[in-house]
Amino acid sequence: MIKNNRGKEKIKLMPLGGLNEIGKNMTIIEYKGEIVVIDAGLSFPEEEMLGVDIVIPDISYLIKNKDKVKGIFITHGHEDHIGALPYVLKKIEVPVYGSRLSIGLIEAKLKEHKITNAKLITIGPREVIKLTQMSVEFIKNNHSIPDAYSIAVHTDQGIIFHTGDFKIDLTPIDGDVMDLHRICELGEQGVLLMLSDSTNVEKPGFTMSEKAVGIGLDEIFSKSNESRILVATFASNIHRLQQIITISEKYKKKVALSGRSMVNVFNVAKELGYLKVEEDTIIDLNEISKYEDNRLVIITTGSQGEPMSALARMAFSEHKKVEIKDGDLVLMSAHPIPGNEKLVNKIINLLLEKGATVVYNDIADLHVSGHASQEELKLIQRLAKPKYFAPVHGEYKMLKRHAQLAKELGMPDENIFVIQTGDILEFNKESCAITGKIQTGNILVDGLGVGDVGNIVLRDRKHLSEDGLMIVVVTISKTEGKVLAGPDIISRGFVYVRESEFLMDGAKEVIKAVLEDCESRNIKEWAYLKNNIKDGLKDYLYQKTKRNPMILPIIMEV
Amino acid sequence: MIKNNRGKEKIKLMPLGGLNEIGKNMTIIEYKGEIVVIDAGLSFPEEEMLGVDIVIPDISYLIKNKDKVKGIFITHGHEDHIGALPYVLKKIEVPVYGSRLSIGLIEAKLKEHKITNAKLITIGPREVIKLTQMSVEFIKNNHSIPDAYSIAVHTDQGIIFHTGDFKIDLTPIDGDVMDLHRICELGEQGVLLMLSDSTNVEKPGFTMSEKAVGIGLDEIFSKSNESRILVATFASNIHRLQQIITISEKYKKKVALSGRSMVNVFNVAKELGYLKVEEDTIIDLNEISKYEDNRLVIITTGSQGEPMSALARMAFSEHKKVEIKDGDLVLMSAHPIPGNEKLVNKIINLLLEKGATVVYNDIADLHVSGHASQEELKLIQRLAKPKYFAPVHGEYKMLKRHAQLAKELGMPDENIFVIQTGDILEFNKESCAITGKIQTGNILVDGLGVGDVGNIVLRDRKHLSEDGLMIVVVTISKTEGKVLAGPDIISRGFVYVRESEFLMDGAKEVIKAVLEDCESRNIKEWAYLKNNIKDGLKDYLYQKTKRNPMILPIIMEV
Repeated sequence: MIKNNRGKEKIKLMPLGGLNEIGKNMTIIEYKGEIVVIDAGLSFPEEEMLGVDIVIPDISYLIKNKDKVKGIFITHGHEDHIGALPYVLKKIEVPVYGSRLSIGLIEAKLKEHKITNAKLITIGPREVIKLTQMSVEFIKNNHSIPDAYSIAVHTDQGIIFHTGDFKIDLTPIDGDVMDLHRICELGEQGVLLMLSDSTNVEKPGFTMSEKAVGIGLDEIFSKSNESRILVATFASNIHRLQQIITISEKYKKKVALSGRSMVNVFNVAKELGYLKVEEDTIIDLNEISKYEDNRLVIITTGSQGEPMSALARMAFSEHKKVEIKDGDLVLMSAHPIPGNEKLVNKIINLLLEKGATVVYNDIADLHVSGHASQEELKLIQRLAKPKYFAPVHGEYKMLKRHAQLAKELGMPDENIFVIQTGDILEFNKESCAITGKIQTGNILVDGLGVGDVGNIVLRDRKHLSEDGLMIVVVTISKTEGKVLAGPDIISRGFVYVRESEFLMDGAKEVIKAVLEDCESRNIKEWAYLKNNIKDGLKDYLYQKTKRNPMILPIIMEV
Repeated sequence: MIKNNRGKEKIKLMPLGGLNEIGKNMTIIEYKGEIVVIDAGLSFPEEEMLGVDIVIPDISYLIKNKDKVKGIFITHGHEDHIGALPYVLKKIEVPVYGSRLSIGLIEAKLKEHKITNAKLITIGPREVIKLTQMSVEFIKNNHSIPDAYSIAVHTDQGIIFHTGDFKIDLTPIDGDVMDLHRICELGEQGVLLMLSDSTNVEKPGFTMSEKAVGIGLDEIFSKSNESRILVATFASNIHRLQQIITISEKYKKKVALSGRSMVNVFNVAKELGYLKVEEDTIIDLNEISKYEDNRLVIITTGSQGEPMSALARMAFSEHKKVEIKDGDLVLMSAHPIPGNEKLVNKIINLLLEKGATVVYNDIADLHVSGHASQEELKLIQRLAKPKYFAPVHGEYKMLKRHAQLAKELGMPDENIFVIQTGDILEFNKESCAITGKIQTGNILVDGLGVGDVGNIVLRDRKHLSEDGLMIVVVTISKTEGKVLAGPDIISRGFVYVRESEFLMDGAKEVIKAVLEDCESRNIKEWAYLKNNIKDGLKDYLYQKTKRNPMILPIIMEV
């Protein structure tokens, strides 16, 4: 246990993800033998993580210290905050606390993973979970999912205030503005350390209210009397769903839902009372043919152009229930997340080619962000008046910018900490410093495999993806060292073999020459032989094609 | 030969690329047995084209009709307009016409491809190449490379006006505004068909002058007395280079160039007189250590985050001559092209982590586009007054939008043609219609291979990249059908084998069971045996891992 000069134990803050990256949010707060975890999110694989499904944080530290872990406290129900829970809960048994909606979404997720024994506890706003050394308070904020919380961890050294993902929506759909009053009180009591959302720190001004989207949608609905309307948006943006449904009802349209996650989230949200829907508004997607086009609204997943999403399947004419046709109106109620622009554009192009009118980003704005812009970030900074500040949730450039913002508000440089995933930030009333590192990093999930795809596997996948492979098989007699069968060549992903006979014949000659040479010199070290085949073939193929396929020589001894 | 009702031969316009896509611009105009080709560009591979270097158009039509082809007329020297030339000129011998700079860049390119016998002809603005049926006129425009042309093809039916890539820069760096006077004259004479650049059709207003960038750069230079300054930009943006050099000279700084294409383009442009540089401004990158940091400017490639570019190598500490250090100022004088955002962000993050200050997009704008926005597009439409209109250079959504723009200017719907790559647009004074298709498409270039990577190879690369492969080798005696050696299993890119012994043992059991079954039933059809191994293994592996590696059973007969 680390003690400071005066013998007082310090609080340790240790992020397992979410810093220098988007997603995989998970933060440890440890004090006097007690651990509080905020969020357990996943991230989506980077381009170079070929074949990987999702990425979760390495929680070795928590496994080693599992007796200390008192709970995982969830800010809100987005994948980058709850997506790692099924994997974490398989390793450590610990209660999960969150809002009613967060817990509802977590329940559904755990069910898919066949986890039934988890201890899930619903916590309301301003409610406090008292532990021995710390107590954890949930504070309502605004975000692109309802029932999102900021979290205050109270200690005898002061308060740690984690904004969570947030914006300040002064006209929210559900009427509940972020609990600025409570944040003011905390500020008066004394916030020791604030962690604040950096996602939109590069955006000047104040993020628009979700209500603005409703106004834009209503205008389009009012002018589109003849069209069937499809709206693509994020399934979890329940306030957006509410607005689309309410406007549909206003214009006497029925609403069908398309996409697995859209249906799942709708059901959870509806059941928990987060959606106000007239009794006969929602119809089954199987029944859309029973209604006139201009009486129909379809809310669909796929606003990010995801290749397997409902909207993508419609665009590629692969959707079983919805066929895009001339006159359809498709509203893209989302912005492409950086990296998804090309996918989204592809879908828009295909929809247009089918005769649909598509309203996207460059034509009219039917989306607002769920994250605070600069003026909101400054406001929270002013209200919470933290002594120390560490920007969270963002790439390095955002964290750096957020640190700059705090400095502009008068915070001294030495009280601002641009921490990294794995850093240990130790602090108490008197001081704060980065004091070390804990083990953490990316755990890649591919199918059922958690962590079995590492650098070697990824390197091989990359090599194979760029130049394919060539397999050489020879059967050799153990006793005489004579070639009994082969060499046979099999290639995949390298060249179109039928048009490359000449190349393959040349490759065989190269191999035969190596084999003859080894045979004549009576060499029976297969490793040596394999290397010679590899080298000879590599040179030959590169010279002929300027490509470097993976070469796998296999020798069978008989 | 296709004749119209009145027996008159029509003009055929046939794009080989550049429609429904960005890049690969190449257009055929055929009239009375004469073919004029405008541009011969490449495009960069889509994400799914694994391992592919570049994409060029399928020019089968030109090869079949090579005697008719009178020349390739180049609008400007960007890769998406000249990049396919080395491949095209290997197939058809034909003169290439272009501006002095275009021809200079083409010469350098052909030299790299060891093509020495090409007939390259420099043409000045308003110069006309007279063929038998058509004549081709070059008209100066403005773009993000100097010496860019629009092209007018004169026929007895009227003029075909191709804007090329363009913007209207009213205060261009070289002083030469787009030749609007000539375009007005052509409009008066009668433009039959206009093809116009759709790249920025979604942008309202008028694209800013290149001069605006100079003002922004000067302001930053004037405030950065202490820093070494690095500017990342497109090598071919010679006006940008000029501005950076002029401002550097104003502030008494030396300029070094980094990146192969930066040096190459600089040399061509300098030699041809497109750059005004004081005698001792440019220094070798090897000599930067001889100067104080605040006397140094380094112009570098890598503004798109390209992983092998000079700037990326600096960011990853892999550049041999430039090490990024605390206090460096890096100016990103370019916007990320859609799809490159993540790459660019990665580089920015790394540079910031090294202590550099980075000025990018979200902080200050140090870039302007080279393409016309809506008001410029409308203006050209007004000046040229074409009878028929076909938007070119853009994705479908842009072409569609451009068609809409023409309609808003009063052009009748039936005179606007949203054509696709491969379409035949036939027209004369009286009429215009899409009448058919010619063979064309994407030819993938991978290393030295042109077209040998097709769908099967790409499908295999994709499969390998996602789940890797498992090879099973067995040696079996021809006579008895007995297994003499194996089964051996080799896997790559599937799982980390050392940690998956159990899985591999299980796989061997599955194979052995199949082999024993076949042996006991005396089956010697290897195809049948291979299929059984494949199926058994596929089921086993999917059940255990939820992955589907490529399975390659190989049977050696002895």
